[in-house]
Amino acid sequence: MRTAEFYFDFSSTNSYFAAFMLPEICARAGAAMRWIPLHSAALFRGTGFDVMAMTPRKARYLWRDHARYSEATELAFRRPSRFPIKTALALRCVLAVDHLSGGGDAGDRARVAFSQAVFRSYWERDEDIADREVLGELAAEAGIAADSMLKQADSAQTRDELHAITDEAVTRGVFGVPMVFVGDEMFWGKDRLDFVARWLSRA
Amino acid sequence: MRTAEFYFDFSSTNSYFAAFMLPEICARAGAAMRWIPLHSAALFRGTGFDVMAMTPRKARYLWRDHARYSEATELAFRRPSRFPIKTALALRCVLAVDHLSGGGDAGDRARVAFSQAVFRSYWERDEDIADREVLGELAAEAGIAADSMLKQADSAQTRDELHAITDEAVTRGVFGVPMVFVGDEMFWGKDRLDFVARWLSRA
Repeated sequence: MRTAEFYFDFSSTNSYFAAFMLPEICARAGAAMRWIPLHSAALFRGTGFDVMAMTPRKARYLWRDHARYSEATELAFRRPSRFPIKTALALRCVLAVDHLSGGGDAGDRARVAFSQAVFRSYWERDEDIADREVLGELAAEAGIAADSMLKQADSAQTRDELHAITDEAVTRGVFGVPMVFVGDEMFWGKDRLDFVARWLSRA
Repeated sequence: MRTAEFYFDFSSTNSYFAAFMLPEICARAGAAMRWIPLHSAALFRGTGFDVMAMTPRKARYLWRDHARYSEATELAFRRPSRFPIKTALALRCVLAVDHLSGGGDAGDRARVAFSQAVFRSYWERDEDIADREVLGELAAEAGIAADSMLKQADSAQTRDELHAITDEAVTRGVFGVPMVFVGDEMFWGKDRLDFVARWLSRA
């Protein structure tokens, strides 16, 4: 079975869109999807890449572009009042819910449910996903005890796990998010998901 | 009749792809297409935007991305040996062939034919489109006398016309190429042509 490996960060608008578009593409292709939380701020420190060259006019365009994507995907995207936002804790929580769900397939399902919940919290309801209480509530909604999750997320084990993901991403050539791998083939951005679909359907 | 206004520069890989993809989209939508040569180096000076933030790993990715687009579009893209390249003269030649063809519809057709010929020369045959002789040959193939075109391209009138295009583009919010307008709605890059198609088909 083919797998799409999905590197994402909650601070990335394009990761938000991809987090809801890619699962449908994988389902149609009969492919698996692996969710990998990546701390892009740490990645940029490692690769010397400091987001995109940005000017006010380009920023204005990008928000308009997001609004058009929202219309096309019917996702309830709303421009958040806190932007950019710190995401290291929320990303470690993804690893924590996997662990607390016992890993394996159950862990994978927990990653997806919790990650999509965090994306919706930040990009649809304008909540502060850097806040422990907000993250704890999202955990509780996913059936996971908030204090267990936060304790696990704060552990040295989980911190090391997030660092290891960054290191591996650098080794693989990742320079931003969302980044999707199909085998060794790498696709950047929500606007290459049609290519991901094509690669997933190849023998 | 709806119109897609297409701002392009020959130095832009994404303009090359759009120059062949967008005409098909406009034809399917029953829309007109207006070709507007834009000197992006001058635009960047005016808007304070200096191409995209770039690192070696990102550059490697982008060339791979172009190769995948080439495969998907069946365009004979080849990475040019001269890159980046100066394009002001070639862009002025586009305005010159329009003028020498008498403007109007004939001028528009001449713009398209000559522009696509320049794109193929640079992005498929690795020719030096900063060279007067190369441009002259492309003119001759389009039935236009090389020396007339070059003389017109060098004229103050044509230089002013190219500057005026830059000024207007800045006013409209353009920050890069390819940029496509459908009315006031602005779309950046070859990867928003599906949105252009959607806008062209709206009432």
